[in-house]
Amino acid sequence: MALRVVALAGGVGGSKLAHGLAEILPPDHLTVIVNTGDDFEHLGLTICPDLDTMIYTLAGLANPQTGWGRKDETWGFLETIETLGGPTWFQLGDRDLALHHERSRRLKEGQSLTEVTQHVCQTLGISITLLPMSDDPVRTIVITDKGELAFQNYFVARRCAPCVRGFRFTGVETAIPAPGVIQALSKADLVVLCPSNPWVSLDPILAVKGIRDAVSEKSVVGVSPIVGGKAIKGPAAKMYSELGFRPSSLSVAEHFQDLLAGMVIDKKDQHLASDIQALNIRVLVTNTIMKNEQDRMGLGEEVLAFASAMMV
Amino acid sequence: MALRVVALAGGVGGSKLAHGLAEILPPDHLTVIVNTGDDFEHLGLTICPDLDTMIYTLAGLANPQTGWGRKDETWGFLETIETLGGPTWFQLGDRDLALHHERSRRLKEGQSLTEVTQHVCQTLGISITLLPMSDDPVRTIVITDKGELAFQNYFVARRCAPCVRGFRFTGVETAIPAPGVIQALSKADLVVLCPSNPWVSLDPILAVKGIRDAVSEKSVVGVSPIVGGKAIKGPAAKMYSELGFRPSSLSVAEHFQDLLAGMVIDKKDQHLASDIQALNIRVLVTNTIMKNEQDRMGLGEEVLAFASAMMV
Repeated sequence: MALRVVALAGGVGGSKLAHGLAEILPPDHLTVIVNTGDDFEHLGLTICPDLDTMIYTLAGLANPQTGWGRKDETWGFLETIETLGGPTWFQLGDRDLALHHERSRRLKEGQSLTEVTQHVCQTLGISITLLPMSDDPVRTIVITDKGELAFQNYFVARRCAPCVRGFRFTGVETAIPAPGVIQALSKADLVVLCPSNPWVSLDPILAVKGIRDAVSEKSVVGVSPIVGGKAIKGPAAKMYSELGFRPSSLSVAEHFQDLLAGMVIDKKDQHLASDIQALNIRVLVTNTIMKNEQDRMGLGEEVLAFASAMMV
Repeated sequence: MALRVVALAGGVGGSKLAHGLAEILPPDHLTVIVNTGDDFEHLGLTICPDLDTMIYTLAGLANPQTGWGRKDETWGFLETIETLGGPTWFQLGDRDLALHHERSRRLKEGQSLTEVTQHVCQTLGISITLLPMSDDPVRTIVITDKGELAFQNYFVARRCAPCVRGFRFTGVETAIPAPGVIQALSKADLVVLCPSNPWVSLDPILAVKGIRDAVSEKSVVGVSPIVGGKAIKGPAAKMYSELGFRPSSLSVAEHFQDLLAGMVIDKKDQHLASDIQALNIRVLVTNTIMKNEQDRMGLGEEVLAFASAMMV
């Protein structure tokens, strides 16, 4: 019988594994809880980059080159904004923009982010349950040597150049988990920490009241987003270095030490397996780099088999 | 020496003659004052359909098939909005949308509509002076047998089907002319009423405090938007009928009788010339249908020659 799985994820890396899991689990056995700490307001729109990447990936619409955005995209809007002297620092494709608009329109009408996400999933044929971590705004602030920066300012506008000193998640003190989050966790046989940035993708989710506690009661398996000392995508490795840690799957394991029963690391990191096991975390060493849909399903299968074996 | 001209205009028809005038007059001799009564809020954006049509036409970007919108347009945004179950009743091309966004962004930053329009003209290479009738919101309400309808609701969503009983211009009591409007009129040698809808394009402009008085002190020449009893574009003829008037260039002449020194009518309406002249309005009979850029310039030349001859 299939496990009931809850996956916690950020954007590009996390959505690849979530997609693999979605392809092999019955739809009602998979709930994906997505970071909304990257969300921001731009051109009067509420933009949810991690939710968008997850939606496009699960719907088969993602741009395979970038990992974010859509594969069938056009750029007339942004080209014209540039002609008109408007802000172009955030990439907005014509079709992508429609999702931001329709989401923002529904939010302004009073729908919750959870309701809007559910609607979007229905229209795009996504049958698993996709939930934002919270309907309340939580915004990741990156504390850097250049001051405190809103996440998209740090990530996109400044291309992660400033040196990171720490993080704050504004609004997290009062945010509550989105409807369904705690229920899905309580029913889960397994929680998967997808290969997403520990600092700015997974930590914000776990910082929402009640989520970390609910996760800690479950079998938790993580997939390292760091392979051979480098992040497959994004600034995770740079962040570890700047915060004084050696970027490695061992550092990721230590990061989530209190939660993890098992950890999936790449073959390149085989030499770290014993150190991770010394943290009382079981280790699966395999190929974790997902270059195509087969890789996603293959890693999903391995994660599930690894978790099932641990539970026996 | 070239006349100093102020043209009052709405959208498609008016912008064609304005374009013709812009091609033959020195840029500093032409000011076009555009109706903003059709403006509306949609998807959180301030949309100014007549200003947009005028801008695209003057910039050489207009779609020659429709008269509105851009010729180099793509539709990924609206197609995706439709997929997502959002509102699609108002056509929003990807490039057109960028103008609405950038205008709205600047308005929210505190720029006036006049300032934003000036900026857009600069970026698109428009060198004549283009002014909204007012920086204050004035909104045309169409009073119909189906109730009072905001203009775009009547015009686009309901395709002008309801029977018209009258019009209201909300906000016009307190609106003041945009900076430059009264000054341009006071310096003008000639005011041209472009072939725009008298009820919902020209009347709103003339209803803004001080504009009608300033126009009435000038030589005014109108070009009839009605030819052979029909409007070249839009619901002007239907409105005349529903309000109890025979739609004709004579009705248009009567409409602006107190302002007009001269009237340009189409050859098809030659039989109405004497009735118009009986209103103490001089008449030029010519081809008024502008099918291409040559026609626009040709009609512009004829209007200017007719006005010059009147002034001698």
